[in-house]
Amino acid sequence: MAAATQTLEQLCINSIRFLSIDAVEKAKSGHPGLPMGAAPMAFVLFDQFLKFNPKSPKWVDRDRFVLSAGHGCMLQYSLLHLTGYDSVPLDQIKQFRQWGSKTPGHPENFETEGVEVTTGPLGQGVGNAVGLAIAEAHLAARFNKPGHNIVDHYTYVILGDGCNMEGIASEAASLGGHLKLGKLIMLYDSNSISIDGSTDLAFTEDVGKRYEAYGWHVQHVADGNEDLDSIAKAIAEAKKVTDKPSLLVVTTTIGFGSPKKAGTAGVHGAALGTDEVAATRANLGWSYDPFVVPEDALKRFRKAIDKGATAEAEWNERFAAYEKAYPAEAAEFKRIMAGELPDGWQKALEPVTQKETSTRLLSEACLNALSPVLPEFLGGSADLAHSNMTYVKGVPDFQAGSYEGRNFRFGVREHGMGAIMNGMALHGGLIPYGATFLVFADYMRGAIRLSALSQVGAIYIMTHDSIMLGEDGPTHQPVETLASLRVIPDLLVLRPADAKETVGAYEIAIANRKRPSLLAFTRQNVKNLPGTSVEGVAKGGYVVVDAANPELIIIATGSELELATKAAATLAAEGKAVRVVSLPCWELFEEQTQEYKDSVLPPSVKKRVSVESGSTMGWHKYVGTEGAVIGIDTYGASAPGPTCYEKFGFTVDNVIATSRKVLG
Amino acid sequence: MAAATQTLEQLCINSIRFLSIDAVEKAKSGHPGLPMGAAPMAFVLFDQFLKFNPKSPKWVDRDRFVLSAGHGCMLQYSLLHLTGYDSVPLDQIKQFRQWGSKTPGHPENFETEGVEVTTGPLGQGVGNAVGLAIAEAHLAARFNKPGHNIVDHYTYVILGDGCNMEGIASEAASLGGHLKLGKLIMLYDSNSISIDGSTDLAFTEDVGKRYEAYGWHVQHVADGNEDLDSIAKAIAEAKKVTDKPSLLVVTTTIGFGSPKKAGTAGVHGAALGTDEVAATRANLGWSYDPFVVPEDALKRFRKAIDKGATAEAEWNERFAAYEKAYPAEAAEFKRIMAGELPDGWQKALEPVTQKETSTRLLSEACLNALSPVLPEFLGGSADLAHSNMTYVKGVPDFQAGSYEGRNFRFGVREHGMGAIMNGMALHGGLIPYGATFLVFADYMRGAIRLSALSQVGAIYIMTHDSIMLGEDGPTHQPVETLASLRVIPDLLVLRPADAKETVGAYEIAIANRKRPSLLAFTRQNVKNLPGTSVEGVAKGGYVVVDAANPELIIIATGSELELATKAAATLAAEGKAVRVVSLPCWELFEEQTQEYKDSVLPPSVKKRVSVESGSTMGWHKYVGTEGAVIGIDTYGASAPGPTCYEKFGFTVDNVIATSRKVLG
Repeated sequence: MAAATQTLEQLCINSIRFLSIDAVEKAKSGHPGLPMGAAPMAFVLFDQFLKFNPKSPKWVDRDRFVLSAGHGCMLQYSLLHLTGYDSVPLDQIKQFRQWGSKTPGHPENFETEGVEVTTGPLGQGVGNAVGLAIAEAHLAARFNKPGHNIVDHYTYVILGDGCNMEGIASEAASLGGHLKLGKLIMLYDSNSISIDGSTDLAFTEDVGKRYEAYGWHVQHVADGNEDLDSIAKAIAEAKKVTDKPSLLVVTTTIGFGSPKKAGTAGVHGAALGTDEVAATRANLGWSYDPFVVPEDALKRFRKAIDKGATAEAEWNERFAAYEKAYPAEAAEFKRIMAGELPDGWQKALEPVTQKETSTRLLSEACLNALSPVLPEFLGGSADLAHSNMTYVKGVPDFQAGSYEGRNFRFGVREHGMGAIMNGMALHGGLIPYGATFLVFADYMRGAIRLSALSQVGAIYIMTHDSIMLGEDGPTHQPVETLASLRVIPDLLVLRPADAKETVGAYEIAIANRKRPSLLAFTRQNVKNLPGTSVEGVAKGGYVVVDAANPELIIIATGSELELATKAAATLAAEGKAVRVVSLPCWELFEEQTQEYKDSVLPPSVKKRVSVESGSTMGWHKYVGTEGAVIGIDTYGASAPGPTCYEKFGFTVDNVIATSRKVLG
Repeated sequence: MAAATQTLEQLCINSIRFLSIDAVEKAKSGHPGLPMGAAPMAFVLFDQFLKFNPKSPKWVDRDRFVLSAGHGCMLQYSLLHLTGYDSVPLDQIKQFRQWGSKTPGHPENFETEGVEVTTGPLGQGVGNAVGLAIAEAHLAARFNKPGHNIVDHYTYVILGDGCNMEGIASEAASLGGHLKLGKLIMLYDSNSISIDGSTDLAFTEDVGKRYEAYGWHVQHVADGNEDLDSIAKAIAEAKKVTDKPSLLVVTTTIGFGSPKKAGTAGVHGAALGTDEVAATRANLGWSYDPFVVPEDALKRFRKAIDKGATAEAEWNERFAAYEKAYPAEAAEFKRIMAGELPDGWQKALEPVTQKETSTRLLSEACLNALSPVLPEFLGGSADLAHSNMTYVKGVPDFQAGSYEGRNFRFGVREHGMGAIMNGMALHGGLIPYGATFLVFADYMRGAIRLSALSQVGAIYIMTHDSIMLGEDGPTHQPVETLASLRVIPDLLVLRPADAKETVGAYEIAIANRKRPSLLAFTRQNVKNLPGTSVEGVAKGGYVVVDAANPELIIIATGSELELATKAAATLAAEGKAVRVVSLPCWELFEEQTQEYKDSVLPPSVKKRVSVESGSTMGWHKYVGTEGAVIGIDTYGASAPGPTCYEKFGFTVDNVIATSRKVLG
């Protein structure tokens, strides 16, 4: 068909396609197949359903859109550009995948306004979307009043075959079904092609039936390439089903329009090439030059600007009425949506510094103390609530029928939990926490990395943080876990030693709204140690026990700080000048001035011993070449915790003996 | 019912229950709930169906049994003891969860003969079982001949709600259905209780329907507590369905028999306590002292010894006939099942040392060279075959209908792939490899850790090993990944620099049959460097460029070795005495003698520079306090690879400048 004979809708859809094709072609890199195939459903969604204001991308009651199949990001950048977002001018489309552009190779919320979450690692977007829908349901239950629906928006997702193969998506979808998240609507771009070829190679399950088993409302759109009415009807139908999330299985052709490559894996992740671009232009009757959008199409897309402004203005009116009727609630809503913390929230934690027990129970005390003063702070455990000690007393569960609840039941779904937390946080208005055993950070590492990369202040509560976990044995005993987490850029890993440090760790975690914190807590009881402090944690490392002109520094974290202080006391009694340094957060310590760092670990004091019940990797930076590291570089063993601790050398005697050796 | 009125079957089932109860009680730790509830199905399975020889636990044609719900390991230990395995005498049952016992807190294949795989981290067992069934299907297709079924066994699994919530199990089950693994039969102990309480809290999906969607044959057993006939009928029926794996949804009561705790989360993971043990004894009419097994029950169980011996003897006869008819095939079968490598297999790799291209393409050359000489070497990619370069030419795909194939299509299921590899390896007779982008090691870390812990020689082929991946951006660019993997005990992380080192890395990976290897390969081309060697890789680190009395050592891995050698050449031209050390495998280097290590990195040479396109964590051990590390401790960026490389400081100039600074 020639451009002249195309309907306006076809012109719009082809505008998405060719912006995507041209950008990938210019970059000589990217994924044209998804934008070409999913353009119709995306157009229908953005044109008829999605509530958004391009000139106010952060309007709190906007619908959230997640492109879980993040490799197809040119679809999203095209739509952001076409509908009038300032973050993606045409110039940025032309800079697709280049250094410093706003149009990176996968959608990144921290780079591009209008992008809600960071996707690309497959399946994460489904978890994010469940989190976004949870946030909406919770805030609606908390703030809406009869006649005042100030929180009322949908979460839409476009996902592909790859997402549906990933376990993280299965976990999140199962929980989404359980929670009956009626305002979550996913459009499955079912094009039967993944990178290696036809889905016949590895993925022949009945996806729709699987989602039905999860409790979703499932519809099929047979022709997602041309039948815009059916797409629209299915979305409208999905919106009507309020007690189930919806999946639309939309059959499409990857790379639609490309004569030679449509329907093949060849169009998934590589530029079409000059000849095929020309052939596709001819095939779709597209006579425009690269990056040229027909005026009529642009005009139609840009209606979104007025429409969005009107929608937000209407909402502002409604919010003003709400504010008048419920001034306290409105103020609270504004506060949490702005990500501001109430004055003096830290005070609630003070009494916890007086307790003495395991750090996981101290963590429980912190959670319970913070809960009343930070109503936006909420979360739960991956089926270990009573081991992780994350259940907040006197607060209902978050369930279908009690979305105002704040105790979450994530089920045994660690990876899904992490992605859901990211979505909850990026929605705004919530500070999510999630918990499991420290060793199972391995199961959710993909999501933890994305918390850090996406600048999400999620809080990971990880208990049973050493071989002191005991009898469950090596499969459950973290050894290398702390080191493996410290290496993740922008993740704060905090391992407090006692009550003061646990409080300090929570203060850091709550205050950091753009960085995730991972808190490692003991199963076993710990002693409150003289010299520890809440403030010390904020600096990452500090002196706990000192001596004039120290000849030896013992550095420790968490439960091993007690061993260090006891060993130091014995050595001091023998006349040795020993300093003990607590290093609960390496990342924060590294961010201090060189002056401060040198004051804690003076370069002149080269005799140093580290003690931590975990891998020694990384410790040499602090211990240097003349020191010694006490740690565990093998797997643990199944035995009572204290037995393991002793057998692997975590005793005061060993710290003393090692220190003496270092002293020479 | 009193013991006297119990049927022999009931007596046997209660023997399992009370051994488990008593062991947990003595340990004051453990999980009695699952053994009490799943004892009937386990008894029926071991008594009527499972083909095994207790006195010959490694008999190659045994059925494989996987307790995916590994916390219930007392079920398995009880069965091993009762059926007569020498690995679990009564004394070891009494030592449950104690230091040095053969009965650790979760089943560990490397501790206890009769335990096939290491489970506990939930869902892994399902992946392992799919791998075991794959191995059986492949070896049967490869070795069986008309009239000679020498490979013919089933894989049975008991799994729980927790396993079914984990995404890894979803991934594996989806692939298992796709592959139509008819000899995989899973018994789902559906007791509606997980650690936090009723599955109503978080897990209300229709599991049976979900497995049907995966293409499984699903049956329901309404009363798994008492109705042994229905259990037996369902297993028999499952065996008849040969073109689909089977799931039996067996409804049970967790902690069956405990008056106060049955059907509650309280019995999941804690000892019953003295009073409740007594009450359970009374309730089930169990008058025996702790650890006493009624003679009739033991006699019945121990029939397994004769039965197993007969079964194996019959198989030996059949194998002898096979050996006569197909001597070459029989010899080959014996070789691979013994885990022996053919003489001179390394020779096939020699030509690869002459090639010059990216290390991922060198890897492809190695795979294709090894394929004909190591028919047991097989695997594939998680839907990135043509990026990871893992497709072996001239070899069919492994699919239903072509189980003899060796090119695997794992789909976008990284975590499942890892667990499947572990199962394939632990079956015996196979050396599995699996591939994805290096950054997605995060998605499969739970399985990689278990490869190492379980002493599995799986081979992870991880390409696109730095920011040189380029435009896909930070979600796809590994930065911290290498460091995070090096910290896993017993995992060999190999990052070769060129053709010789790639060959060296494969030699190590293939030779190590009890340790997993993870090979990190470049996307971009690399140069073959003078001084590198195949043998050097085996030592982990070695001198590539040398000078008399070096004043500076530059240490590098992978693609950065070229930067190091070029910088060294410039510095040498200026009269500096510079040594360059290649460190492709830290783990192997650490295992060398102190003498060798000191010969490579003489303690007297304190001026050192490391260069690696990854996190600097861990490098200080080699670089010391007077050196400098060149690395990347932030996330990457979306841009062409060479742009990223330069912007983040990976240039010869930067290595020279840093070296000069260190030299002072």
